[in-house]
Amino acid sequence: MQVSVLFSGGKDSSLAAILLEPFFDVELVTCSFSLLPVGDIARETAENLGFAHRVVRLDMPVLEKAYAMVIKDGFPKNAINYIHSAAVERLAKDADVNFIADGIRRDDRVPVLDISRIRSIEDRNGVHYMSPLKGYGRAAVNELVDRYLVIEEDQSDNVIKADYETELREMIRQKDGPEKINDVFPAHVQSHVIERKS
Amino acid sequence: MQVSVLFSGGKDSSLAAILLEPFFDVELVTCSFSLLPVGDIARETAENLGFAHRVVRLDMPVLEKAYAMVIKDGFPKNAINYIHSAAVERLAKDADVNFIADGIRRDDRVPVLDISRIRSIEDRNGVHYMSPLKGYGRAAVNELVDRYLVIEEDQSDNVIKADYETELREMIRQKDGPEKINDVFPAHVQSHVIERKS
Repeated sequence: MQVSVLFSGGKDSSLAAILLEPFFDVELVTCSFSLLPVGDIARETAENLGFAHRVVRLDMPVLEKAYAMVIKDGFPKNAINYIHSAAVERLAKDADVNFIADGIRRDDRVPVLDISRIRSIEDRNGVHYMSPLKGYGRAAVNELVDRYLVIEEDQSDNVIKADYETELREMIRQKDGPEKINDVFPAHVQSHVIERKS
Repeated sequence: MQVSVLFSGGKDSSLAAILLEPFFDVELVTCSFSLLPVGDIARETAENLGFAHRVVRLDMPVLEKAYAMVIKDGFPKNAINYIHSAAVERLAKDADVNFIADGIRRDDRVPVLDISRIRSIEDRNGVHYMSPLKGYGRAAVNELVDRYLVIEEDQSDNVIKADYETELREMIRQKDGPEKINDVFPAHVQSHVIERKS
C-alpha cells in the first residue's frame, strides 16, 4: 500500500512519514504554486530522509483566493486551511493515490480539516485521508522528533520551508511589499528538518 | 521509550500497539475490576500478538458509579467514558508509566476523552497520552486490520472481550438480570483478535 504524505520539509510532516514508513510505501508530495522554488527545497530534505518525493503544482487561482482571504481577515488561518484543503483535494483526484496523509497534530489549530470536509473528500474520491500525529500532543511529538530527526528552528522569516505559508507570504510581498507580511503573519518559530538521527 | 497501551483484545487496541511497535517498547495493559476473568482472556491474545502484558485492577467503586450512570442514562456512553477516563488516570499515576496509548479512532464516539481532560491528565501526572488511530477513519483502520490481524467478529453478547463493556454488562446481569442488559446496550458487532497475519 502506498501513502502520499503532504510534505513541507518541517518536523511534523517528516515525523508523520516516519511513523507510516513501517506499514506503507511512503512518497512525499510537496504542493507548490511555483512562486518560489519550494519544491526543490523540499526535495533535498526528502532525499536526506530517504523518501521518494514529487512536486505537485497547485493552480494559481487557489493562491490568489487564499491571498484575498488573508488580506480580508487580517490573519492567515482561513487562507492556510483553504490551501491545505485544495492540496488534499488535488491529491485525492490523482488516480494512483489511495492513501493521503499529513502532519497535523492534536494541538494544531491550523491547518486543520473539519470532519465533514474529510469525509466528503474520502467519499467523493474513494481515498483514505490520515493524520498519523492527530492523536499525539505537542510534547509527545517533540519527544519523537528529538529521537529521530535533526532539525533547525528559527523565526519564520529566516527559515526556508515548503509549507503553504511560504508562497502566501511571497505573494503578499510581491503585491503589498514586505512590511505587509508582518501585519498578517505574526512571527513564530518554524522548524526545518536537516536529516535523520542515526 | 516504553508505552503502555490500554488493551481490550479487540482490533483497535491491537492495531494501535502494532503501529507503535517500531518506535516504542510496547506493553499491553488490561484494566479489570475482577468481576470476570477478562485479564486472562486479554493475556492470551497479547501472547498471541507477541507483546508483554499486565493486568491492572481498577477499584470497584468506579464500576459501581459507571453502573449507576448507565442505569440512570439508559445508554452506556457516559459510563464507558467514565471507566476509560479512570483507567487512563490509574495508569498515569504509575511511576513507571510515561507514555499511555489507547485504540480510539477518528470516528469513535465512545470511549473518547475530551481535550481538556487529556491535557489535565498529562499536566498533572507528567505523562503523554496518545491515540495512534485518532487520525485514521474507519475504512483506513479496516484496511490495516485486514493486513495485519486475524480477527473474529460477532454480536456483542457472543464475543468474550476484555473491554469496559464486558464487566459493566456483568454487573447489570448480577444486579438486574440478563434482560436488563439489552435495555441499555444495543446489540452491536464486536471484534476479538486471534493472532497476527504472518
